[in-house]
Amino acid sequence: MGSLNRLSATVAARKLAAREITAVSLLGDCLERISERESAVRAWTFLDTDAAMRRARALDTQASMGLLQGIPIGVKDLFDTFDMPTSYGSPIYADHRPATIVVGKTVTTEFATFHPGPTRNPHNLEHTPGGSSSGSAAAVADWMVPLAFGSQTAGSIVRPAAFCGVVGYKPTFGMVIRVGVKMIADPLDTIGVLARSVPDAALFVAALTDRHELLIDRSTVKVPRIGLCRTFEWNRAQPETVAVLEDAGRRLRASGANVREVTLPPPFGGLAEAQTAIMVSEVAKSLSHENLMHRKELSADMTKMIDAGLAVSPQQYDAARSLTRSCRAMLPDIFNGLDVLVAPSAMGYAPSGIAATGDPLFNRIWTLLHVPVIQVPVARGSHTLPVGVTVVGAVGADRATLRAAEWIHARLGGSEYAHG
Amino acid sequence: MGSLNRLSATVAARKLAAREITAVSLLGDCLERISERESAVRAWTFLDTDAAMRRARALDTQASMGLLQGIPIGVKDLFDTFDMPTSYGSPIYADHRPATIVVGKTVTTEFATFHPGPTRNPHNLEHTPGGSSSGSAAAVADWMVPLAFGSQTAGSIVRPAAFCGVVGYKPTFGMVIRVGVKMIADPLDTIGVLARSVPDAALFVAALTDRHELLIDRSTVKVPRIGLCRTFEWNRAQPETVAVLEDAGRRLRASGANVREVTLPPPFGGLAEAQTAIMVSEVAKSLSHENLMHRKELSADMTKMIDAGLAVSPQQYDAARSLTRSCRAMLPDIFNGLDVLVAPSAMGYAPSGIAATGDPLFNRIWTLLHVPVIQVPVARGSHTLPVGVTVVGAVGADRATLRAAEWIHARLGGSEYAHG
Repeated sequence: MGSLNRLSATVAARKLAAREITAVSLLGDCLERISERESAVRAWTFLDTDAAMRRARALDTQASMGLLQGIPIGVKDLFDTFDMPTSYGSPIYADHRPATIVVGKTVTTEFATFHPGPTRNPHNLEHTPGGSSSGSAAAVADWMVPLAFGSQTAGSIVRPAAFCGVVGYKPTFGMVIRVGVKMIADPLDTIGVLARSVPDAALFVAALTDRHELLIDRSTVKVPRIGLCRTFEWNRAQPETVAVLEDAGRRLRASGANVREVTLPPPFGGLAEAQTAIMVSEVAKSLSHENLMHRKELSADMTKMIDAGLAVSPQQYDAARSLTRSCRAMLPDIFNGLDVLVAPSAMGYAPSGIAATGDPLFNRIWTLLHVPVIQVPVARGSHTLPVGVTVVGAVGADRATLRAAEWIHARLGGSEYAHG
Repeated sequence: MGSLNRLSATVAARKLAAREITAVSLLGDCLERISERESAVRAWTFLDTDAAMRRARALDTQASMGLLQGIPIGVKDLFDTFDMPTSYGSPIYADHRPATIVVGKTVTTEFATFHPGPTRNPHNLEHTPGGSSSGSAAAVADWMVPLAFGSQTAGSIVRPAAFCGVVGYKPTFGMVIRVGVKMIADPLDTIGVLARSVPDAALFVAALTDRHELLIDRSTVKVPRIGLCRTFEWNRAQPETVAVLEDAGRRLRASGANVREVTLPPPFGGLAEAQTAIMVSEVAKSLSHENLMHRKELSADMTKMIDAGLAVSPQQYDAARSLTRSCRAMLPDIFNGLDVLVAPSAMGYAPSGIAATGDPLFNRIWTLLHVPVIQVPVARGSHTLPVGVTVVGAVGADRATLRAAEWIHARLGGSEYAHG
């Protein structure tokens, strides 16, 4: 076999539709990669290669049914699937577009928060892949599948995407429906995707939401108006993050973009803390059954978070929600005259070890604000581990945000994941 | 036995805590009422009287564990319960306050939308109780249990409460957690309660959310500042609704309230239609599994709604969401100088027959706006069927809204459900 597993989803879908390749051959190469690497990377909680291959054979005999027909995907193990084991047992969301091939379920941290699974960073097995969409990011980064589902409550798409050097796209809150996904923090939980390019991420969400206008034709992407936004968490950025963001500003300007500095209004300084209060309070409520009936089966990380959540008073919670509403109301002014902001994706490189998945500090405020964000990997020098930047758009402006992210990725991104 | 089933939850909880009555005797009277009336009213999909009685006996031997200890409640059959049959199988929300006695599951319409169940209006068995919280409203109205869970996506708490002459309280969106409740339309689904008095409704939600500040001490309720709001749907109000609302304005003024007319800004004229577009689109997405795999088991009402939802374009959906954001941003100005609005609860009396559950037209905009609403029954003349008004508060102002609703109910409400 060849290396069809290295095709982008966009190119693979085109070749499949043109019958230049078969779903069986594409899946075969993905499964071969998984069998070579899974013992080291540990991206999957469940694989059903026989069922996936049966599905691929059936699809090869059918007329084209949709944008993703024949594309192998991974599904984060926070999502119910009707034909694979999960902790729940409800309808699968991905079933909405039945033409994909679900290869398996990917590792998530405990209830998609902080207690890590066994997955390792494919760029350096001694480091964390990030979390909570650990397995999805690692499987995509390691050429096992071109696309995988993720979800983000604090930084669970952007952080693993940054640590694994891939694209992570968290759409506007609520754009991808949440039915069948375990609820962790209702006002925050957002479904999104991991991919190796921005057009692939756009393709996945376009298919899931029937929004074909999200599809990216690279030839029509225009130069975006960019705000460089260090955020109130900037003093926590490590040298590699500082260097990447400041270098990004210079390179984007040199490429012809209009880049200006954006300082967020003072109330935004309280948003990261507000997100934390809301999140831990919601987690405590969402997992009250598990905490009451199965506390001994929860990790110490989790019971600590639940206890912190129970300590958040309704008044503290309400104040955090109220601050959030105020800041959301300021967003139109912030984006006035700008297509996107460019901000840090993570404090720094993926930390060493797999006992923790890193800090979502730089992701919290965007998740809370419900804005679309796209992490794009930035070319690295001599280092093994990736660093990225986050492209942030206005609520509902996913199309413009994706197009800007593609323009930015084309200027800043490395050549590791072929633009195909 | 006596008629302890006619006690308010507030009084019953006080008597239970003081050991003046037992949980067994209270439950016994509720079960006796259910056995007398259930064949006519059909409020329940499942009853486990033995388990409820065991629970009551156990609670009678325990120290007080919470506000609702020993109070029998009904749970709408849209909610998962871990020890009673549901369509799903996930953790129960109500388990968060384990001291209640869950008597059983109450009838809901098909997936909490419009295709009716078998429940009848206890005030006139030839009429609908409304929906979708049909069984919860009927069980509370018919003295079977003092409290029951409801949920509202369009008008599924307020409408049955109005038709059955009880209090229906839809808190601020998200205040009562949704884990374990079947998702129908994510941006709309709101958990709330049915009760026979405003303090009882407040007690239930105070216990569920650990917000003791919601509890109402009648002696401290102040005269509210009221806006009389006919809404853009006013031309659809039937004579009984017109009469009740206009009479309410006069009587509240005569009782000493400052009442002024409030005309909503023009964009609010599009909100009912926006709510409908968002709702049917979300229903189609939420039930995509059921529609793809089990379409023949869905009612014609439901497949019609799903097909309407699939016909809503992303652009129409986005326009509806955008209008909603604009109107939400105007709410602070509308509530400036006012504690609450008073608006119609339903077009008119409960329609005759049980083939349909009535129209949620007057409830749609408030659900979409995420504001708290409390339907209070208004005293009726010679008619058999109840009419009510809706008290509307600002987002997050549930305490003030409940207190205003209690003041208004005390001035307008009938004596049918004793203020105990």
